[in-house]
Amino acid sequence: MQLTILGCHSATPRANAHPTAQVLDMNGELILIDCGEGTQVRLRKHRVKFSRIKHIFISHLHGDHYFGLIGLLSTFSLLSRTAELHIHAPQGLEEIIKLQLKISHAFTSYPLIFHQLDSYKPQLILENEKLTVETIPLTHRVYTNGFLFKAKPGDRKLLIDKVQNLDIDKAYYKSIVKGKDVETKNGTLIKNEELTEDPKPAPSYAFCSDTVFKPEIVPQISGTTLLYHESTFLEDQEHLCDKTKHSTAKQAGIIAQKAGVHKLVLGHFSARYKDLSLFEKEAKIVFENVEVAETGKIFRYE
Amino acid sequence: MQLTILGCHSATPRANAHPTAQVLDMNGELILIDCGEGTQVRLRKHRVKFSRIKHIFISHLHGDHYFGLIGLLSTFSLLSRTAELHIHAPQGLEEIIKLQLKISHAFTSYPLIFHQLDSYKPQLILENEKLTVETIPLTHRVYTNGFLFKAKPGDRKLLIDKVQNLDIDKAYYKSIVKGKDVETKNGTLIKNEELTEDPKPAPSYAFCSDTVFKPEIVPQISGTTLLYHESTFLEDQEHLCDKTKHSTAKQAGIIAQKAGVHKLVLGHFSARYKDLSLFEKEAKIVFENVEVAETGKIFRYE
Repeated sequence: MQLTILGCHSATPRANAHPTAQVLDMNGELILIDCGEGTQVRLRKHRVKFSRIKHIFISHLHGDHYFGLIGLLSTFSLLSRTAELHIHAPQGLEEIIKLQLKISHAFTSYPLIFHQLDSYKPQLILENEKLTVETIPLTHRVYTNGFLFKAKPGDRKLLIDKVQNLDIDKAYYKSIVKGKDVETKNGTLIKNEELTEDPKPAPSYAFCSDTVFKPEIVPQISGTTLLYHESTFLEDQEHLCDKTKHSTAKQAGIIAQKAGVHKLVLGHFSARYKDLSLFEKEAKIVFENVEVAETGKIFRYE
Repeated sequence: MQLTILGCHSATPRANAHPTAQVLDMNGELILIDCGEGTQVRLRKHRVKFSRIKHIFISHLHGDHYFGLIGLLSTFSLLSRTAELHIHAPQGLEEIIKLQLKISHAFTSYPLIFHQLDSYKPQLILENEKLTVETIPLTHRVYTNGFLFKAKPGDRKLLIDKVQNLDIDKAYYKSIVKGKDVETKNGTLIKNEELTEDPKPAPSYAFCSDTVFKPEIVPQISGTTLLYHESTFLEDQEHLCDKTKHSTAKQAGIIAQKAGVHKLVLGHFSARYKDLSLFEKEAKIVFENVEVAETGKIFRYE
């Protein structure tokens, strides 16, 4: 699992402060999460192969999370993409994109498939052999979801001494690591548990932007490998959180601590703050393994 | 008059190839012409004061000419702008912008006034004490206008020896330079022509992007100080012009030569060309005073 931060600042894009966008590579499945203005230029800069992106997840319809989408979709057409593209987003985005295409007399060179999100409960919205994706219902000024990405565990680990001692034909190894029982050459059935052990735990990633402090999400993201949680403000501006429906770095730290995640990444910083190390410092008081997001930063897990 | 190029490349934005956007300062009136994705970041980079922009002109509704507009309008609101903003654009843009605002539950903090362009003949669309703006009907794959900006001439030039010899009171000087006749202290009426001479010719700017080769525009832009004309292709790809409704550098040169403009600026280069000096070279065969546009380049006329 590899997460690349393309932008992690709130509101207006500036030369060195790009709005929210991330690329997640999970078992080889490349996913774009949010798509602020300028995302396509960031993707090029970080040498992400456009054609490998098959799913785009949009958390909510504030501009700093989706204004770059129409440009990216247009570029896909200019590059003559033919592969299906799936967009998972709240109601309204399909209408916006289709109106823009219609007025430009444009069409996409590829099937563009919208999956409308409208539930206020966690939902499984994608499952394939590489991963599952669930919505994490958040509370913001407009309808908003976070997303929980869970890698499918890999093959079971073959206990090579055991299979060799039992003289099991090598042709069966592929099915054994998939969990199948097997017969020895003399016809004895051997249970899979005797021949394999559990694979390494599969990594998971929870993306939570934007939201007020919402401990209700803790059970769903419990034990997540990596948690990205917005921290628009520091505690000095906590009084703004209720009105703007955002969180502080300390609140993000509390969520990480309660959920027992492995690592917390902070982002969506308000433009009023120049020294981002203060966010790390504030969250660290409640949760040790924390880092601030930064354009171009990569988080990698085996 | 000062023209700043913010972007001059066609189609998809890349790290060093920004789509069309320009800022024109004409007698202190600051105007944004087209607004491709990322324009607001370019405006910041070139230290253009956002609040000074009161008019935005959009040539046509292909993404590389307007995808940056919704982000800029949102940023104006985040900066608490209160001054009116006028957008002159083809039918459809108002619907797109209003849908995006509605779906984000957003509104502008300032009056946003759309002026819909739909004529296929040149039209005077703005006149104030600083300048006039006319549409230049172009031919492209969608409804498209260029724009002709003409500075209003300054005050008439006072012939200081004459007014002093005639012993005219200094209090009249302000009205004399505005073209008024005046009486001497002994009551003789003096015609303005005896006291002043014509002001310096006022500069003008014609923006023509995107279009096929269209000599019909020559009479309208005749004698223009500065002409920006698209040159998406070099002659080697002239066969693409008819299908895509674009021009070559040579064709842009012919328009400049026939119109007898002072200077030609080329832009809207296709991404297939790496060496932009070839555009200048090709146009120079028919028109000497030519330059290629470049992000950050400034053209200044007194």
